[in-house]
Amino acid sequence: MTRVACAQYAVRDGDPDHNLERSLHFIWRAATEGADLVILPELANSGCDLGSPERALDLAEEIPGGRTVRVWKNEAEGSGIYVVGGLLERDGDTLHNSAVLVGPEAFGRYCKTHLWDREKLLYEPGREVPVLDTPLGRIGLLVCYDAWFPEAARTLALEGAQFICVPANAPDDWVPERQRRGDLTMLNVHCIAAANANRVFVAAANRVGDGYLGRSCVVDVTGGVLALAGATEEGLISVELQLDRAHREKRLTDLSHAFEDRNAAVYKGEAREDR
Amino acid sequence: MTRVACAQYAVRDGDPDHNLERSLHFIWRAATEGADLVILPELANSGCDLGSPERALDLAEEIPGGRTVRVWKNEAEGSGIYVVGGLLERDGDTLHNSAVLVGPEAFGRYCKTHLWDREKLLYEPGREVPVLDTPLGRIGLLVCYDAWFPEAARTLALEGAQFICVPANAPDDWVPERQRRGDLTMLNVHCIAAANANRVFVAAANRVGDGYLGRSCVVDVTGGVLALAGATEEGLISVELQLDRAHREKRLTDLSHAFEDRNAAVYKGEAREDR
Repeated sequence: MTRVACAQYAVRDGDPDHNLERSLHFIWRAATEGADLVILPELANSGCDLGSPERALDLAEEIPGGRTVRVWKNEAEGSGIYVVGGLLERDGDTLHNSAVLVGPEAFGRYCKTHLWDREKLLYEPGREVPVLDTPLGRIGLLVCYDAWFPEAARTLALEGAQFICVPANAPDDWVPERQRRGDLTMLNVHCIAAANANRVFVAAANRVGDGYLGRSCVVDVTGGVLALAGATEEGLISVELQLDRAHREKRLTDLSHAFEDRNAAVYKGEAREDR
Repeated sequence: MTRVACAQYAVRDGDPDHNLERSLHFIWRAATEGADLVILPELANSGCDLGSPERALDLAEEIPGGRTVRVWKNEAEGSGIYVVGGLLERDGDTLHNSAVLVGPEAFGRYCKTHLWDREKLLYEPGREVPVLDTPLGRIGLLVCYDAWFPEAARTLALEGAQFICVPANAPDDWVPERQRRGDLTMLNVHCIAAANANRVFVAAANRVGDGYLGRSCVVDVTGGVLALAGATEEGLISVELQLDRAHREKRLTDLSHAFEDRNAAVYKGEAREDR
């Protein structure tokens, strides 16, 4: 079993020292509670309201050479925990909205491929959605708005991901209160739909405060909600997952299978040439 | 504005006379309440527990020549309403799990492309997901399990559908009660996710009784739930929709757009050659 935790907290825009301290606090708490992996929010080093492009370059860090990854790696090697978190990355003068997986025996990096609104003016989008082989299992990373594109989770799942981790800074859904059902945000809905359609585990760690919606979640391969945080409070949610269920439970009945039942000949939508 | 209704009722397996009478009752009620279009459940002529293949062939009808389409067409021409409903279809000795759109000035037919479990032994799957041009707007049809495959709604939306109608016979979700949130079924979750990701309207009419889950729904382009039926009771839900919002609201902000933000170069999954 793999204990997975999502850390939901108020990242502070443009305050990297504070943000590093808070990330360490939650990594430490998750490790203390026995978590094997903890997910932190998107842009956990910088926040996402960065002021000018110059200020953004100033706040951005190299991966894996920058301070935050080095500190997380040190923490991971000390406690044995794997850390997934969002990072403002610089590669020369190029900025990325990235996520990393840092752990004792694995390292991975992903650049957000679906950029929201003015992020397009600042970041270079990613060009692949890699599956990361770790001792815990095969893990895919997505960042926030990526989750609104079902092709992204589908791609990870078809490539063998068992567990999709989603650092997020999801703000308003633009859905009127009376049209919501239960306590689910649209990020939750997309996580549930992706988990159920692909028979993978999905977990999202969302920011709170300043209008961010919280509701970090861990979703079962069935689409069941295993844990759901509140809308405003900081904290950890954590659940034990049996990640190999993501492979075993692709088969739904003797004759039905989540992937084999796809009818790709009728689907429209550009796809990679190597499909 | 287009008033759309979903008729939720207990189709009776293997009782076509009863089922035709019930469908006419709900078409008539919807027309009386001012609906421009009414959606009936999947396999509304036959039910889905058909006994033997021979009995299924006996219950199946030709489209458009069979009795149910003729009667629905007569009703549609009399009242001006459009009827979408699921039908057990025969074409020679071949069976399809189909849906039709029957109205005063449009007719369309769709065969379920994603067959659930033992349906594979009985039906020939469809090979296209057509968008139907009607005086009300551009309408796509999906049948039940199709909604579990995000590529299906995506294809319809990319082809210009403004409104996706889903006749369904959705039974158990296999999600433990304590892992559900609010009163949403997995069919609802997939309708909400598809509406929000594609910025289209989605409505599902589900069967009740015999373990079928009901919860017929109408979902806004934002993903907001405009109407949601109960789990067990028969009845109509109806809502006014402004279908051209599905085109106008693809643009999310000055720089974000539900389709233009797709990053197709990274997606895996076979697609049609003519993409």
